[in-house]
Amino acid sequence: MQFMVRIDVRLPGDWPKERLDAMVEAEMDRGNELMREGRQVRLWRIVGLRSNFGIWQADTLEELHETLGSMPMHPWMDIEITPIIEHPGVARFRERYGDPPAC
Amino acid sequence: MQFMVRIDVRLPGDWPKERLDAMVEAEMDRGNELMREGRQVRLWRIVGLRSNFGIWQADTLEELHETLGSMPMHPWMDIEITPIIEHPGVARFRERYGDPPAC
Amino acid sequence: MQFMVRIDVRLPGDWPKERLDAMVEAEMDRGNELMREGRQVRLWRIVGLRSNFGIWQADTLEELHETLGSMPMHPWMDIEITPIIEHPGVARFRERYGDPPAC
Amino acid sequence: MQFMVRIDVRLPGDWPKERLDAMVEAEMDRGNELMREGRQVRLWRIVGLRSNFGIWQADTLEELHETLGSMPMHPWMDIEITPIIEHPGVARFRERYGDPPAC
Amino acid sequence: MQFMVRIDVRLPGDWPKERLDAMVEAEMDRGNELMREGRQVRLWRIVGLRSNFGIWQADTLEELHETLGSMPMHPWMDIEITPIIEHPGVARFRERYGDPPAC
Amino acid sequence: MQFMVRIDVRLPGDWPKERLDAMVEAEMDRGNELMREGRQVRLWRIVGLRSNFGIWQADTLEELHETLGSMPMHPWMDIEITPIIEHPGVARFRERYGDPPAC
Amino acid sequence: MQFMVRIDVRLPGDWPKERLDAMVEAEMDRGNELMREGRQVRLWRIVGLRSNFGIWQADTLEELHETLGSMPMHPWMDIEITPIIEHPGVARFRERYGDPPAC
Amino acid sequence: MQFMVRIDVRLPGDWPKERLDAMVEAEMDRGNELMREGRQVRLWRIVGLRSNFGIWQADTLEELHETLGSMPMHPWMDIEITPIIEHPGVARFRERYGDPPAC
Amino acid sequence: MQFMVRIDVRLPGDWPKERLDAMVEAEMDRGNELMREGRQVRLWRIVGLRSNFGIWQADTLEELHETLGSMPMHPWMDIEITPIIEHPGVARFRERYGDPPAC
Amino acid sequence: MQFMVRIDVRLPGDWPKERLDAMVEAEMDRGNELMREGRQVRLWRIVGLRSNFGIWQADTLEELHETLGSMPMHPWMDIEITPIIEHPGVARFRERYGDPPAC
Repeated sequence: MQFMVRIDVRLPGDWPKERLDAMVEAEMDRGNELMREGRQVRLWRIVGLRSNFGIWQADTLEELHETLGSMPMHPWMDIEITPIIEHPGVARFRERYGDPPAC
Repeated sequence: MQFMVRIDVRLPGDWPKERLDAMVEAEMDRGNELMREGRQVRLWRIVGLRSNFGIWQADTLEELHETLGSMPMHPWMDIEITPIIEHPGVARFRERYGDPPAC
Repeated sequence: MQFMVRIDVRLPGDWPKERLDAMVEAEMDRGNELMREGRQVRLWRIVGLRSNFGIWQADTLEELHETLGSMPMHPWMDIEITPIIEHPGVARFRERYGDPPAC
Repeated sequence: MQFMVRIDVRLPGDWPKERLDAMVEAEMDRGNELMREGRQVRLWRIVGLRSNFGIWQADTLEELHETLGSMPMHPWMDIEITPIIEHPGVARFRERYGDPPAC
Repeated sequence: MQFMVRIDVRLPGDWPKERLDAMVEAEMDRGNELMREGRQVRLWRIVGLRSNFGIWQADTLEELHETLGSMPMHPWMDIEITPIIEHPGVARFRERYGDPPAC
Repeated sequence: MQFMVRIDVRLPGDWPKERLDAMVEAEMDRGNELMREGRQVRLWRIVGLRSNFGIWQADTLEELHETLGSMPMHPWMDIEITPIIEHPGVARFRERYGDPPAC
Repeated sequence: MQFMVRIDVRLPGDWPKERLDAMVEAEMDRGNELMREGRQVRLWRIVGLRSNFGIWQADTLEELHETLGSMPMHPWMDIEITPIIEHPGVARFRERYGDPPAC
Repeated sequence: MQFMVRIDVRLPGDWPKERLDAMVEAEMDRGNELMREGRQVRLWRIVGLRSNFGIWQADTLEELHETLGSMPMHPWMDIEITPIIEHPGVARFRERYGDPPAC
Repeated sequence: MQFMVRIDVRLPGDWPKERLDAMVEAEMDRGNELMREGRQVRLWRIVGLRSNFGIWQADTLEELHETLGSMPMHPWMDIEITPIIEHPGVARFRERYGDPPAC
Repeated sequence: MQFMVRIDVRLPGDWPKERLDAMVEAEMDRGNELMREGRQVRLWRIVGLRSNFGIWQADTLEELHETLGSMPMHPWMDIEITPIIEHPGVARFRERYGDPPAC
């Protein structure tokens, strides 16, 4: 079960560099753990911003909630979750031509 | 070069079934062509709506414009384009663990 | 797996009464089928409007999409889907006092 | 008399863990009291956020106001109240098939 | 039990005068009936617009829904309902000085 | 001359109880003065919020401005003013049936 | 008593030129009458749009309502009314330097 | 060349009275200078708020920018600028009846 | 004097190809005339949409209004005008390094 | 590859002049570097605000992201990026008349 999630991180502009760096480091560490577990499937940086689109995988909605809440920057996040499924056009593509391009 | 594109199709509620079906068919045909060319990389249906999120690939912005404009439903679409790049967390994942999960 | 869904139906003001009545009848028939199948768990009318909040149950996101799309008024609906889970306060209530009140 | 209430809690990102934990504890205690009294009928966590949808029961609007204002996190809440009644489709379901599914 | 209700009527600009006049007449007739029954307590025209603020009285939410739905212009209305109670400042005024000014 | 005014007070969540109580007390004192002078005609608490709808009376716009600005919480208020007049339906009611119900 | 009023006229794009011209002519005739009566004090065209800002004078809110409603394009107008008074800076200017510049 | 400018000043609610008074004084001094130079043609207080509509005159856009930026409260302002010209209805009024009413 | 103008053209989805083509042709002809006169300085297509950003030059606001209103698609346009001037960073660039890059 | 970028800088109103000046200086220095490299092609000040529209050039989206993120005021920026291409009307102008006017 997959979800398209847009996350916009709103950090105060005045944080000292050390605090910001430590936070970014912790965030990436946790993200990598989640990716190894297959829960954060893919993440794209939105150009120009501290924001991202991501595909998140969860077997249950409880798991999705726990996963997102475990991110260190979670208290400063705006999060928008959109449930997604395979598009019928992609399904037809698979029948006729096989796997769609890797992304 | 990739873009996250959200498309919401606003068709009149009163179209006869034949017109609607023909339009959907034409849309999927064109989408499949674009996917074979690697320009429509992936498409996800947004649950409950005639809407989708998609990853679109283009070598130039001119190509992206032409690609989106070639969709038969284009005159009824609301389109929101977000330029995206690899997320630094994914880059670090690749260095440490190899490819991220397929999506 | 449950979702809170708000549906606002935007019908043209000029529909003749017969068309409107037939549409409402078809909508309630389909809704009752879905409720018997346990897919439309509960529906509340929003006071003053042709709108409702509902709890929808689905084992998969594909099922939720199919269920919502099978409603006769779907082409005139604005739909907002919010994934929900048990609230931790309710979980604690169950531990301490048993089932929460029926709603 | 029931109301669908969406509550979004906006706590500062910088609160120390002790303060946050104590606040959450107090909030759940008060919520459980209200649930025992049948005033907070049901609460659902919105996935990914410190937000919830809830069904609130009150005999009067004065009671609803007092109930919501008694929550410890109330000064940090965005609250949206929607009066709801039984949906006519559910009423017909009851006539034909008995009680709708438990939620 | 009272509600502040804002109603904005969105009629097509092209209606012939006869249709518009008949609709306005029917709307006022129905409004006067509801006022005699004490359900439409007071109505204020919003300057410059076909819109109004009103205080609506109902013993139940079901009654409020039925009342609003019985207005002839209801299919063209945008309706926003806000539950209201006596303000604590007014309550104190009553204790100290008696009834507030008539409005 | 009357105005429907919606006021939403946005106080910081962290104010100590004494400061908040003193502010509320001063606000109600000033409100009662204005009500005795017939300038604050009626005030309704919006359920669940530190907000209100009110009917404000003023002979001039200068008086309305001065009146609103004299409230102790004014620096923290969001204020929306809507000029209102008697609704034509109420005028007809008066002709036919006398005074509308007290509110 | 004066009001700043923004009016945006939303005419269908497809009106034949004759209909549009006649409507514009009627609108300007009515506007000129109101200006002679001192009720439409000043009107500025908003560059690029069929929109305007205007200062409207009325002794009562009833008069303002009647004045705006008498415009031939009223059924296609979006209207936003803002009550205005002399700015304290202008008042001080008058005391010190006499009348402000003509506008 | 004239512009309709709406300015909303967002000052923190907690400023001590001395700071606020000094700021208001400086703002009015600067405003009066600009009015003497004919650059701030007219200013209207928006009832109930620390906001205003104004007509600003400038020979160039550079001058308008410099003028607005020279206001002491500029760092706390929300500013919306609308280019305006004489309305065709006013032009016709001048031809037929002479100058429009003073405002 | 220059203005950044965003134009979004909202044509009905159902126009026959001939009508659409003729309209596009007329629009481009008029645009080219304006560009030869130096009034439409530059136009950029917004990727994916029938929309554009443009730099428009005018000696007066009256000229800008007339120019925009002379576009054949004007009745179907949403237009947003932003007055712009040289950026101080560009001014400094000119002093130090000469002309900025051509765009 | 070019992008229209609107940047609104939201600095706290209370920064001391020295801090503000140093920030502005650093911002212009970095901007000039980027302009020399042809990455910031052109920048226009939006009249009245600390905001700008700019044309940004990048060979890749990664470059655009890095470029924007290197601005000293980036943590206080709201950024809106719109991918743009040559407008077909400009292309036709080039064929028929040569280069469009310099901007």
